[in-house]
Amino acid sequence: MAAMKVHGNPLSTSTQRVLACLYEKDVEFQFVNVDMGAGQHKSETFLSLNPFGQVPAFEQGDLKLFESRAITQYISQEYTDKGTQLLLPDSNKTMAVLQLWKEVEAHHFDSPSTKLVFELHYKPIFGMATDTEVVEENEGALAKVLDVYEARLAESKYLACDNFTLVDLHHLPNVHYLMGSSAKKLFDSRPHVSAWVADITARSAWSKVLEMQKL
Amino acid sequence: MAAMKVHGNPLSTSTQRVLACLYEKDVEFQFVNVDMGAGQHKSETFLSLNPFGQVPAFEQGDLKLFESRAITQYISQEYTDKGTQLLLPDSNKTMAVLQLWKEVEAHHFDSPSTKLVFELHYKPIFGMATDTEVVEENEGALAKVLDVYEARLAESKYLACDNFTLVDLHHLPNVHYLMGSSAKKLFDSRPHVSAWVADITARSAWSKVLEMQKL
Repeated sequence: MAAMKVHGNPLSTSTQRVLACLYEKDVEFQFVNVDMGAGQHKSETFLSLNPFGQVPAFEQGDLKLFESRAITQYISQEYTDKGTQLLLPDSNKTMAVLQLWKEVEAHHFDSPSTKLVFELHYKPIFGMATDTEVVEENEGALAKVLDVYEARLAESKYLACDNFTLVDLHHLPNVHYLMGSSAKKLFDSRPHVSAWVADITARSAWSKVLEMQKL
Repeated sequence: MAAMKVHGNPLSTSTQRVLACLYEKDVEFQFVNVDMGAGQHKSETFLSLNPFGQVPAFEQGDLKLFESRAITQYISQEYTDKGTQLLLPDSNKTMAVLQLWKEVEAHHFDSPSTKLVFELHYKPIFGMATDTEVVEENEGALAKVLDVYEARLAESKYLACDNFTLVDLHHLPNVHYLMGSSAKKLFDSRPHVSAWVADITARSAWSKVLEMQKL
C-alpha cells in the first residue's frame, strides 16, 4: 500500500482532526507542512490537491482527498483493524447512529464553535478585536447544542455509544481551543459534557497532535 | 424488517432530500406529516425523535434517526440492492471519493444555497423583504463553489463519478428552488453545471417528491 501523505498545518483545526485520527489508528504517514502565512494553500500546486485552497489535503498513491471528515472516514475504514476502532462496523444500524452524531457535529456544533474559536482564540493572536455580539450569538447557539449533548451523554459515555469514536474525535480541535477561552464555562456548567471533554482531551493521540504545534 | 416511517413536511428541503432517496431506492415507507405551521416540530413527541426540533425524523423499529444526510446514507446502505445504486461500494477508495464530494455539498454548497433559498424563495412567500446584501454575499460564495463544480463536471458526468449518486441527490432541493429564482443565472452561465442540473432535476424520483407538495 502506498504511503499516506498529509498536506496541512499543525495550527489548523481541520488538519488537527486528520492528525488525531492518524495517531489513534497508529499508522505511518508523511506530514507536508503548508506555510499558510506565505499563502502556500493558494498556490497552483496546492489547488491541484484541493480546488477550494484549504488545508488539509491527503494523498495515497492515486487517491487524492480533501475535506477533513472525508479523510478521517477513509482512514478509519481502510485501517479498521489498526489502533483504536473509530467506527461501529457491526451493522448498518450501528453505523447509522454514528453517522447521525457525525452530522450533528458537522451541522450543529461546528459552525458556532468555529466562529467562537476565531473570535476568542485566533483574533487576539493576530491583534484583532473580538466582536462581542458575534461571541454572544454563537455562545447562545453552542449552549443549545451542549444541552442536547448533556442529555445524550447522560445516556451513553460518548456521543455515538459507550466507546470513543470518530464522532468524539471530530470535536477535539474546537473543544481544545474553547477550553482555553471564556467559552469554557459552557462546557464546565454541564457535568456530563465536562466529564466527556476531560476524557477525550486526555487521549494520548490528541497529546501527539498538540506536540506537533511545538515543532 | 420493520416498516420505515418518515416524519417531515413536503415543503422542507431536508425532508425532500430523504424522500428523493426513498423514491430512488423504490422502497416502501410511511410518511407522517409534521404541521410546522402549528409548531408540531417543537412538540414533546417530536422532540423525542429529534432533540433539535427539526424535520425530518426517521423510525424503523428500534432505530430512530434524524439529520437528513444520515438518513439517506442509512437507506442507501441498507437497501443497496434495491432501485438506484446511490453509493460506490466497490472499495474504500471509491467510497472515499463519494464521501469527499458529500462533504463538499455539506460544507461548501449547503450554506450559501440555503441562505439564498431563504432570501429568494421563502421570504417572498411569507411577505418578508429580501435582504439584497445577503443575496449578493451568498451569490458570490455560491459562484466560487460552482466554479469548482464546473471543472469537476468537465471531467465526470456527475460529482462523484460518471453515475448519479447520493452526492448529486443531496443537491436537489436547493438546486430546484434556486432554478426558480434570480440565482438561476449562476447555474445557466456554466455549461457543465447547467447540463448536470437539467439531468438531475429530470429524474422521476424527484418528480414524485414535487408531486407530494400538491397533496
